[in-house]
Amino acid sequence: MKKTHPSALQEKEGITPPENTSFSAIDRIKKFRKQNLNPRELAKKICNGNTIALSRAITLVESTNPEHTEKANEIITACLPKANKSIRIGITGVPGAGKSTFIESFGLHLTSLEKKVAVLAVDPSSSISKGSILGDKTRMEDLVRDRNAFIRPSPSGDSLGGVARKTRETIILCEACGFDTIIIETVGVGQSETAVHSMVDFFLLLKLAGAGDELQGIKRGIMEMADAIVINKADGDNLKPAKKARAEFARALHIYPPKESGWIPKALVASSINGSGIDDIWKLIEDYKENTFASGYFNTKRMEQQKFWFLQTIEERLKTNFYQNKTIKAALKEKEKALEAMEETPFKAANELLNLYYNL
Amino acid sequence: MKKTHPSALQEKEGITPPENTSFSAIDRIKKFRKQNLNPRELAKKICNGNTIALSRAITLVESTNPEHTEKANEIITACLPKANKSIRIGITGVPGAGKSTFIESFGLHLTSLEKKVAVLAVDPSSSISKGSILGDKTRMEDLVRDRNAFIRPSPSGDSLGGVARKTRETIILCEACGFDTIIIETVGVGQSETAVHSMVDFFLLLKLAGAGDELQGIKRGIMEMADAIVINKADGDNLKPAKKARAEFARALHIYPPKESGWIPKALVASSINGSGIDDIWKLIEDYKENTFASGYFNTKRMEQQKFWFLQTIEERLKTNFYQNKTIKAALKEKEKALEAMEETPFKAANELLNLYYNL
Repeated sequence: MKKTHPSALQEKEGITPPENTSFSAIDRIKKFRKQNLNPRELAKKICNGNTIALSRAITLVESTNPEHTEKANEIITACLPKANKSIRIGITGVPGAGKSTFIESFGLHLTSLEKKVAVLAVDPSSSISKGSILGDKTRMEDLVRDRNAFIRPSPSGDSLGGVARKTRETIILCEACGFDTIIIETVGVGQSETAVHSMVDFFLLLKLAGAGDELQGIKRGIMEMADAIVINKADGDNLKPAKKARAEFARALHIYPPKESGWIPKALVASSINGSGIDDIWKLIEDYKENTFASGYFNTKRMEQQKFWFLQTIEERLKTNFYQNKTIKAALKEKEKALEAMEETPFKAANELLNLYYNL
Repeated sequence: MKKTHPSALQEKEGITPPENTSFSAIDRIKKFRKQNLNPRELAKKICNGNTIALSRAITLVESTNPEHTEKANEIITACLPKANKSIRIGITGVPGAGKSTFIESFGLHLTSLEKKVAVLAVDPSSSISKGSILGDKTRMEDLVRDRNAFIRPSPSGDSLGGVARKTRETIILCEACGFDTIIIETVGVGQSETAVHSMVDFFLLLKLAGAGDELQGIKRGIMEMADAIVINKADGDNLKPAKKARAEFARALHIYPPKESGWIPKALVASSINGSGIDDIWKLIEDYKENTFASGYFNTKRMEQQKFWFLQTIEERLKTNFYQNKTIKAALKEKEKALEAMEETPFKAANELLNLYYNL
């Protein structure tokens, strides 16, 4: 329903309301929300590029209501044939590395090239620390308003496994909706980078030039995962140290064993403020895509990721079923005490516990 | 039974047979083997330093006969209070790096310092490739004859999980038998280094100085595991390149993030032929032990390793039980086809399989 403006500022009849409060758009959204669309219809709308339908389907994916999960599964299955046609880019960096401004600048560059960009986030910590990434969408003011961009914050209050599933399914929906460039942001918390690395084609590490040893403080394994390292905020007084840091990272990257992809990771500098280097990063990613497509690695990796999440889901649930069992929980505590007191070997303790479990 | 030498070379009566065929020792061993010792007696003999009893118990540990496994478990439980008092050193390196000669040289140095040295091997590949490590004990001719050394090749024909359990249990038996320095050798095959890394206090990577880039060809993760890198065969013409390689590795080690132990990995050179550098390596390990004992990390790590193998054993068996199930095996193949054809998401496929499993 339209607001009727009963104040003195009421507009005269015949004058159309200003476009910045698009009542027709509000009407359209409200009307859409009221429709109790079935999964098939929603999937159809998603495949026709309807982002309101997309948002709604993602809400179903994120819901813990089993009825919603079932609907979400139907939608995803219907969307699958149109998915998988995109480049998926993971971006990580510690808080303060300038991820949001970088993604805004990078995203706007991509939409200027007629790309359709979806930005998602994996942040299993957000529910605890409340310092969520992408939570404050206003940090990407311009990108949010871009018709060719779709931004969705991290689903909260969940385990990493849960967030990973939801993100993977959201990727499928976004791709079916026509988004050809998927950016997944994550912070260096827990195992979230490993999870994101297992769902993207290209993994980008964002760094700042600091004082002293650039390589200290990088979490184990992150460097080995990176396909590119970008020294961000390379502008003004920061340009010179950024270039120095770039050189140091380039040397460090050389030390790692060659990647399975055959790709040699690169170090670059960029500025989200003046836009320098942003174009080079995109060219690098296109180069990566071309190379790995030609070698077949691109699809091999996606297939491996599918299998990884398949087995991962199985093994997670096998473990949950065991460790959440009440009898096992009690027995496990006893065994842990025996282990600490060096009264049993880990193997004997484990096998006794399993014999108990399989005889429940 | 003594051989009676019926040939022309028969010795005159009154002359004692030469000591290199010690008939009395043969008798002792034969007599011991004939005894059907119960586990408690065997454990007692082990704790008194009897290496024949030790060998016999290890054979029980390695056996697949459930009756033997039960006996082995009894022995281990009885030995546990006397175990855990040693330094456990992991040594890895590609074939040709000179592991055997290095361990011989290093082991003889340790026995000269009144240490009691047990050398074990983890090599899950040996049953397939037949190129087993320590299989040919004659490569350690002098160490084999040393009364203060005990050498046991890798148990063969087994999975890595199986080999790891057997090795861990053998460590306990060796320690109870009075061996205060346990060396575990492994080759860079599969995940064997990770397994060995999870059962030792100190991890040593053996390298050769080569032509060109020293850092190429090192398996991912190995460098990060190493507490020390030793450039072996640093003698003769090889000394200069070895020293150069040492410097390059020292630089590379500096790049890795600091270790949880607080220990800064070192690079050294050594020669198994002229013995140079061997003493420095032992001093380094003693230094490590002293430091990590003082910080409490030494024991924390051992406790963590206990817990690791406990959970590892549980999770391995949960997976085996699932994947070896006949119904699941068939259903899994179907699901894998559906995944390859992109007809299902990994999550849906996994959950359907698990629902099937829990309703069996």
